Amino acid sequence: MKHAIATTDARAGTTSLPAADIARTARKASFAIKSLPGNARDLALDIIYDALAASKDEILVANARDMSAAQELVAEGKLSQSLVKRLDLSRAGKYEDMLQGIRDVRGLEDPVGKVTLATKLDDGLTLHRYTTPIGTLLIIFEARPEVIANISALAIKSGNAAILKGGKESTHSFAAIAAVITAALKSTAIPPGAIQLVQSREAVKDLLDQDVYIDLVIPRGGNDLVRYIKENTKIPVMGHADGLCATYLHADADVDTAVAVVVDGKTDYPAACNATETLIVHAGVLGTVLPAVVAALQAKGVSVRCDAASLATLSAVSEGALSAAGKAILQAATEEDFKTEFLDLVIAVKTVGTLQEAVAHINAHGSGHTDGIVARSEAAAEEFCRMVDSAGVYWNASTRFADGYRYGFGTEVGISTNKVHARGPVGLEGLMIYKYVVRGGGHTAAMYGGGGRKFVHERIEG
Amino acid sequence: MKHAIATTDARAGTTSLPAADIARTARKASFAIKSLPGNARDLALDIIYDALAASKDEILVANARDMSAAQELVAEGKLSQSLVKRLDLSRAGKYEDMLQGIRDVRGLEDPVGKVTLATKLDDGLTLHRYTTPIGTLLIIFEARPEVIANISALAIKSGNAAILKGGKESTHSFAAIAAVITAALKSTAIPPGAIQLVQSREAVKDLLDQDVYIDLVIPRGGNDLVRYIKENTKIPVMGHADGLCATYLHADADVDTAVAVVVDGKTDYPAACNATETLIVHAGVLGTVLPAVVAALQAKGVSVRCDAASLATLSAVSEGALSAAGKAILQAATEEDFKTEFLDLVIAVKTVGTLQEAVAHINAHGSGHTDGIVARSEAAAEEFCRMVDSAGVYWNASTRFADGYRYGFGTEVGISTNKVHARGPVGLEGLMIYKYVVRGGGHTAAMYGGGGRKFVHERIEG
Repeated sequence: MKHAIATTDARAGTTSLPAADIARTARKASFAIKSLPGNARDLALDIIYDALAASKDEILVANARDMSAAQELVAEGKLSQSLVKRLDLSRAGKYEDMLQGIRDVRGLEDPVGKVTLATKLDDGLTLHRYTTPIGTLLIIFEARPEVIANISALAIKSGNAAILKGGKESTHSFAAIAAVITAALKSTAIPPGAIQLVQSREAVKDLLDQDVYIDLVIPRGGNDLVRYIKENTKIPVMGHADGLCATYLHADADVDTAVAVVVDGKTDYPAACNATETLIVHAGVLGTVLPAVVAALQAKGVSVRCDAASLATLSAVSEGALSAAGKAILQAATEEDFKTEFLDLVIAVKTVGTLQEAVAHINAHGSGHTDGIVARSEAAAEEFCRMVDSAGVYWNASTRFADGYRYGFGTEVGISTNKVHARGPVGLEGLMIYKYVVRGGGHTAAMYGGGGRKFVHERIEG
Repeated sequence: MKHAIATTDARAGTTSLPAADIARTARKASFAIKSLPGNARDLALDIIYDALAASKDEILVANARDMSAAQELVAEGKLSQSLVKRLDLSRAGKYEDMLQGIRDVRGLEDPVGKVTLATKLDDGLTLHRYTTPIGTLLIIFEARPEVIANISALAIKSGNAAILKGGKESTHSFAAIAAVITAALKSTAIPPGAIQLVQSREAVKDLLDQDVYIDLVIPRGGNDLVRYIKENTKIPVMGHADGLCATYLHADADVDTAVAVVVDGKTDYPAACNATETLIVHAGVLGTVLPAVVAALQAKGVSVRCDAASLATLSAVSEGALSAAGKAILQAATEEDFKTEFLDLVIAVKTVGTLQEAVAHINAHGSGHTDGIVARSEAAAEEFCRMVDSAGVYWNASTRFADGYRYGFGTEVGISTNKVHARGPVGLEGLMIYKYVVRGGGHTAAMYGGGGRKFVHERIEG
């Protein structure tokens, strides 16, 4: 046991028990929370909502402490401005969005116990498949203190136990929100230990060893965090390392649509994983559609890094298509730019000769997150959507739509680029698994082998 | 590159390319196979079926060579009889079952491109979720040479590329089946490299490193194989290490039902992962139901290892309930017996005072595979099924029903005790993931934030 001193800081609402105890407690609680009726879980969400709404001021004070510490690190060059932006709970509407996220989750259909398959195997022998909570989740996140509320809500609604570990940048915000949630849960039916909030950095490595008790790890943070976790655990990991999203302007792209979609994809929230990082352009529209897109991006302060073909064409277009000032600030792209998640007001421009080349570029360089095409031709768009191997493929829409709230999932536990279990924005469904129930009357397998009986395998009403 | 000599043995149908080349080729082929129409994939299954049917004699000759080598190892104590049984393709009906499995898979609904969610986000902006193949699978199996046909069929039907690695015990069977399948695929639309058959033992470790190209590993074999794989790869693993299944006789269990279910669960195919290994008995029926069950088990040659309470009661029952000879061969169980997957004609008997105790025993000792209750009371059965955290929970039915064919999935890629992605017998659905497609008309996220538009999130027809 690596942590000799096991204490729970009741005031802060976080636990500093040894990892094995935290995980064992969570697993035990998971059996209890999965048996609670839906209305008990919903009531707990109401109580958390009210408590967080009532504690807004003190939580924002704590958040301001994190923000000023972060700004110092930015000044020292130790933290990026994009991380600071994620940390800020005081931005207009952000706290209310966090609260609304809880209410949205509460309003969703109860995901537990839904029948997803019902088969008559034979007379008096049935098979049903019911959705069940996965069990015990470990969620590790960096900045974004509002995640604690989102994740707690999703875990409770879905009947899972969850262990949450926040990042050091959000220490004070995390402690303040944890204190409110932990206190609120005491007056609910949620069993103690079902939601545990861990603040010790050292605990992470030990928690990643608890594959006997923990069923799924969900990292929410940068590439380094996700890679570290994938390399240090046998527990399944759900998440995305990169969000290297591309938008492709096809040969028949409409210029207004291209401008709208690319400018939004790049500038709506550059620090987000669903921001457009690469602009792929069909050679046929380098001189027609691209200049307007570049001019619009530059007007929003975006640095444009061009491959040779796009740079040559843009440099040669008329002053009416792109100003001399705009041409002067164009940059040459390096190969590295096409593998980089800038998370900033920078975009890389790649020229292709065909749609297939655009698809191949995305499948080779992208991160399988979200990639779009701007095209008039439905056939071209459908081919793009079929061939691009990403969680989200978009036609004439900004990559920024890749989000659980926008998809109608209430809120999200993260965005997954996994190829198993859950892909894309993950809401409640991604926190569920299922079990099979067979009900018989003394039926044996031998009846069907040598016994001569045949299975009927008829779909029945659940 | 660890394997300097890269060759393909065309005669044997297996490849000995370096692991990275195998994996890269498979990934490339995965893009092509996922775009094939369903009828092209079905036609390929017909061609494989015909080729395997025509080659039965030569494949059984190869299998006989594996069997005689295995029998020598059994004689030397280096291989268990249960593994030999899994190896044997000549058992009555087994080859035909293998062929029928291909036809059953072919007859299933095409799993690719099904709409599982369709939402109107706003006017002119829609979200659809379509099922897609996962991509590239690595399947590693030990004995059971028929798995190669099952898995190839499932991979082709589901539009996935697959790399298959057989065990050393089935070397000749594997090579013979691989040669037939590889030759047959040449006359189909399945792209070269979509199904690759690997026989080199050294290749496994290198293949497990190819997490860039391989999306899912499916081990089919013993505990040691599964654990080795889980500890040596960052690729998600789907499978089960143990099949430690229990059947619980509740206080109101019907004696005939108990006898039928337990005898079948234990003796129908003791080497299978869904065989019953532990018999849990309510104290109230130790002297009434248990003796008949034990007598029936003993009549089938099963060794019965009893905990203290069941041993005492059985020893004291009348000669009519259990013969003196039966009593004489009862054994005392050790704690280890309740954690052991015997895969043989051995069963451990555990006494409990309550249903809750039975549930706790299963959740603590079982492997989350399949566990059943024999009870008259529906309320008791439903509580058991709700509280036992296993992939399959059964009421008055043999644990042997845990099987993809019996569930109506055609055949199975394995049985999963994972808590994510797929659980229980895994058929086609477990080899699928999905992608989201958003279709818009130049929509931007900014329209919904500051722009004042609202999402409608209406379910629509797919």
